[in-house]
Amino acid sequence: MFLKVPHPVVMDTIFAPATPSGESALGIIRISGARSLQILMEACKISDVEPRKAKLTDYYSVNAEHIDQILVTYFEQNRSYTGEHSLEISCHGNPLIINLLCDDLLDRGCRFARPGEFTQLAFLNGKIDLSQAESVAQIISSKSKQAMHAAQRNLRGDLSKLFTGIQDQILSIQAIIEAYIDFPEDDIGSPDHDVLTQKIEPIIKKTKHLCEQGEKLQIFEKNIRIVLIGPPNAGKSSLFNKIIGTDRALVHEKAGTTRDYIEKEIVLGKHKITLVDTAGIHQTSNEVEQVGVQLSYQQTQHADVLLCIIDGSVPYPTEFFNNISNISKDVPLLLVINKSDLNLLNHDLPIKCQQTFHISCITGEGIDVLTKSILAKIDQSFTNDMEDHVYIGKRHMKLLNDFNYHILKFKEEVIQNHGYELLSETLLSARDVLDELIGYKTNEDILDKLFRNFCIGK
Amino acid sequence: MFLKVPHPVVMDTIFAPATPSGESALGIIRISGARSLQILMEACKISDVEPRKAKLTDYYSVNAEHIDQILVTYFEQNRSYTGEHSLEISCHGNPLIINLLCDDLLDRGCRFARPGEFTQLAFLNGKIDLSQAESVAQIISSKSKQAMHAAQRNLRGDLSKLFTGIQDQILSIQAIIEAYIDFPEDDIGSPDHDVLTQKIEPIIKKTKHLCEQGEKLQIFEKNIRIVLIGPPNAGKSSLFNKIIGTDRALVHEKAGTTRDYIEKEIVLGKHKITLVDTAGIHQTSNEVEQVGVQLSYQQTQHADVLLCIIDGSVPYPTEFFNNISNISKDVPLLLVINKSDLNLLNHDLPIKCQQTFHISCITGEGIDVLTKSILAKIDQSFTNDMEDHVYIGKRHMKLLNDFNYHILKFKEEVIQNHGYELLSETLLSARDVLDELIGYKTNEDILDKLFRNFCIGK
Repeated sequence: MFLKVPHPVVMDTIFAPATPSGESALGIIRISGARSLQILMEACKISDVEPRKAKLTDYYSVNAEHIDQILVTYFEQNRSYTGEHSLEISCHGNPLIINLLCDDLLDRGCRFARPGEFTQLAFLNGKIDLSQAESVAQIISSKSKQAMHAAQRNLRGDLSKLFTGIQDQILSIQAIIEAYIDFPEDDIGSPDHDVLTQKIEPIIKKTKHLCEQGEKLQIFEKNIRIVLIGPPNAGKSSLFNKIIGTDRALVHEKAGTTRDYIEKEIVLGKHKITLVDTAGIHQTSNEVEQVGVQLSYQQTQHADVLLCIIDGSVPYPTEFFNNISNISKDVPLLLVINKSDLNLLNHDLPIKCQQTFHISCITGEGIDVLTKSILAKIDQSFTNDMEDHVYIGKRHMKLLNDFNYHILKFKEEVIQNHGYELLSETLLSARDVLDELIGYKTNEDILDKLFRNFCIGK
Repeated sequence: MFLKVPHPVVMDTIFAPATPSGESALGIIRISGARSLQILMEACKISDVEPRKAKLTDYYSVNAEHIDQILVTYFEQNRSYTGEHSLEISCHGNPLIINLLCDDLLDRGCRFARPGEFTQLAFLNGKIDLSQAESVAQIISSKSKQAMHAAQRNLRGDLSKLFTGIQDQILSIQAIIEAYIDFPEDDIGSPDHDVLTQKIEPIIKKTKHLCEQGEKLQIFEKNIRIVLIGPPNAGKSSLFNKIIGTDRALVHEKAGTTRDYIEKEIVLGKHKITLVDTAGIHQTSNEVEQVGVQLSYQQTQHADVLLCIIDGSVPYPTEFFNNISNISKDVPLLLVINKSDLNLLNHDLPIKCQQTFHISCITGEGIDVLTKSILAKIDQSFTNDMEDHVYIGKRHMKLLNDFNYHILKFKEEVIQNHGYELLSETLLSARDVLDELIGYKTNEDILDKLFRNFCIGK
C-alpha cells in the first residue's frame, strides 16, 4: 500500500506511551491521527506499507538524528483501534528513548494524548459503544480475575445487549400506550393494568438483579490489603521482602505518602494485593516513634488480612500482644513465628489467630506454605460466585438506580389508574436514563468524566 | 501461511513479559520456540497466519478459560529476533492478565526465560554478533543520549567492524612472519623491524583511542544524582514533587533501602536523573532523628548536583548553614529560596552557591526556570564530545587492556630482535583476546556473565 498524506491535516494527531516507564525489553508508543502517515514516511523512511505488518526500521528525529531502531506497525483508517490512521512504535525499553520519541512527536506537530483519549476516539468514531469503552479501563484496573472476566464480558458487548434488551421491552410497552393515546376511539382495546404490570415486572426484576451484581462487585474494586504487624525486630521487613520475592518480576512500588510504612502492589495468584510493612508496635516515650506506632495501628484498620509476626527466638512478647488486643478482629489474622520454634499455645494468645505458621526468613523455610495459606484465605474470603456476571460500575449503578426509580413510579401510576399521557411521560423519563446508560445520549461532560480515570495511552 | 506444528518439540519454548509491570494501556509478552505455533493454534485459535501481521484475537487458557482479547504477531523462524518461531502478545496492561498468561504458558510446557535469553538465542542462532548482543542491554540501560547513541552504533555493527578491522591488520602482520618461518630459505626478504613496527603502530594507536573512549563513557554509566537538602520544613518534599511533575508520566520509583530518604528516577531532557529527597538537617538530641540527619549528610557525598532549599519567609537559617559548611564543594550547588523573598547576599553564605533561585512551590513560580538551570548545569558538567563514539563497556575495557599488553609486548620483542617463532606466538595471544572481544571464542561462562545483567524479556 502506497501512502498518500492527506493535506491539509485538520484533526489533531495524538500520541502517548502505552507501557509503564522503566528499563525493560520493550516500550510502546501509540500514535493516532492523519500525521501517522507523515511520521511513517519522514521519521521511519517508509513510503509503502502493508497495514498491520510489523516493520523493523530506524526512527530519525526532525533534526535527522537517529533515535532508535524500532518495530513499527501501521493500522489503516477505519480498521484501527481509534478508527483513525494509527501507528504502534515498539522501541528499546529505555525511558530516555521514550522521552526522545515523545519530544520528536511534539516537534512534528502531534500532541500528547489525554488519558483514555484513544478509547474516546474509538467511541466517537463508532468502533465501540459506551459500555465497551468503559470496560477497557475496567479490564486494566481489575483487582481480581472475577472482576476482570465481568469487564471482558462488557467488552464483548454483553452489557450493551442487556441494556438494549431492556430498552426494547420499554419501547414495546410505550407502543401500546401511544397507540391508545393516538387512537382512543379505535377498538384496539384499552391496555389494562394487568398487561402493563405484567410487562413492567421483568424489567424491574432485571434491574434489581443488575444492581445486586454491582453491589457484589464492590469488594473487587480495590486491592486486597495485607498488613504486616509485629513488635520491633521481629523480621517484618524480611518477611515483606520474602513475600515480594515470590512474585515473578511483577512488583511495583506505589508512591508512598509517608515514610513510616511501606506498601507494594504485587500479584498473588488471581488477586492484586497491596502488601504493607509497618513500624514495630511497642510502648515508647519518643514522640517520633509514637507517630510511627500510631500509623501502624491505623494500617490495621484498613487491612483485609493481618499478618502478625513475632520472633520465636526471644521470650513471649506479652507487651506486644497486650498492645494489639484491641485491634479489629473482623479480618483473618495469621500468626507468623519467625526465626525459631517458640511454641505458643492458642489459649496463650490474647488475640484470635486463625492459623499459626513457623518460618525462617533466612533459610526461606515455611514461606511457601505461608503464602499459599494466605492465598487460600483470600480465595475463601473474597471469592464470589460471579459466573457470567457483567461489570456494573459506579456510573451504571447510579443510572440503574435512577432508572429503577422511574419504572417503579410507572408501576405505581399504573396501579393508581393514572392517565396514559402521564404514564407515557414517566416511561420517557426511564428511556432517557437508559439512553444515557447505553451512550445514545452523551455530552462532553459525561465523556470527560468517564475517560478521565483511564490510563495514558489507552 | 498455514501452520504445521513440528513434532516432537525438542527445544525449550521460552517466554517473558517484555514491558514493566503496572496498570497501563498495553502489556507485551514475548514467546520464542517451536511451541509458538501450537500456542497460536490452541490458545489463540488461529490456524493460518501471515507472519508479522498483527491479529486481534481472544486468548484461551488450557482449561478453555477466556483470558483476554489480545493482538498477536507471529514471526517466522529465521526471520525473527531470536531466529526461532516467535510470538508477541499485546494484552491489556493489567499485571493480573500478564500473570494469568504466564501461568497458562507454563501449563503449556513453556518455560520462563532467563534475563537476556532472547538476545542470547539471537547470538547463538547467528542473527547478531557478540558486540551487537551486548549493545542491546546497553541501549536499554543508557543513562544519557550520548551513551545511548554510542550503544546504537554498536548495534549497527560499528564496534564489530572496528574489531574485525584490527584483526585483519594483525592477520596481515602474522602472514608476513609465518611466510618467513615457513620458507626462510626463499628469497622473500626477511621482514625487517621497521616494517613490523610500522604495521603494529596504528593498531597500538587505535587500541589506545578505544580505551580512552571507554574511560570517557564511564561518567555516563550511572544516573546523575540530584540531592535536595535543607533545614526542616523548607519545602524539600514539595519541590521534589514539583520537579517530578515536570517529567511527563515517566516517573518510576526505585525500591528504597531506607525510610529516611526517598529517591525517584526521572528523565529530564537527555538525562536519566535520580532525584533524592532527604530528611531536614538540624541539631537534635533525638536518636532516631539523628540517624535521619546523618543519612542526609551521607547523601550529599554521592550527589552530582546539590539543591539547597531554604524557607524565605523565616529568618536566615544560620544553624543550617553552619551545619552544612563542611559538605563537599566539588559539585554544583544551587540555592533555592522557597516561599518568599529572603534576599541573601552571596557573601552571607558560608557555602559557595553557583546560583540562587526564588521559587514558590504553591504557585509553581520559578520552578520552570530552576529545572531549566539544573539541566543547563548538567549539560555543562556532563556533556562530552562523543560524536561517532562507539560504546566500550567494562568487558571490552578489560579485554582491550589485555590486547594492549600483548601488542606492546610484540613491539618490544620486535625491537629486541626476538625470533620469529616467539613473535608469532605473541601475536597469536593478541588474536586470542581479539577473538574473545569479537565473540568468535566464547564459552558458557562468558555468555552467562554477559547476559545475566540483561532485563527479563530481552
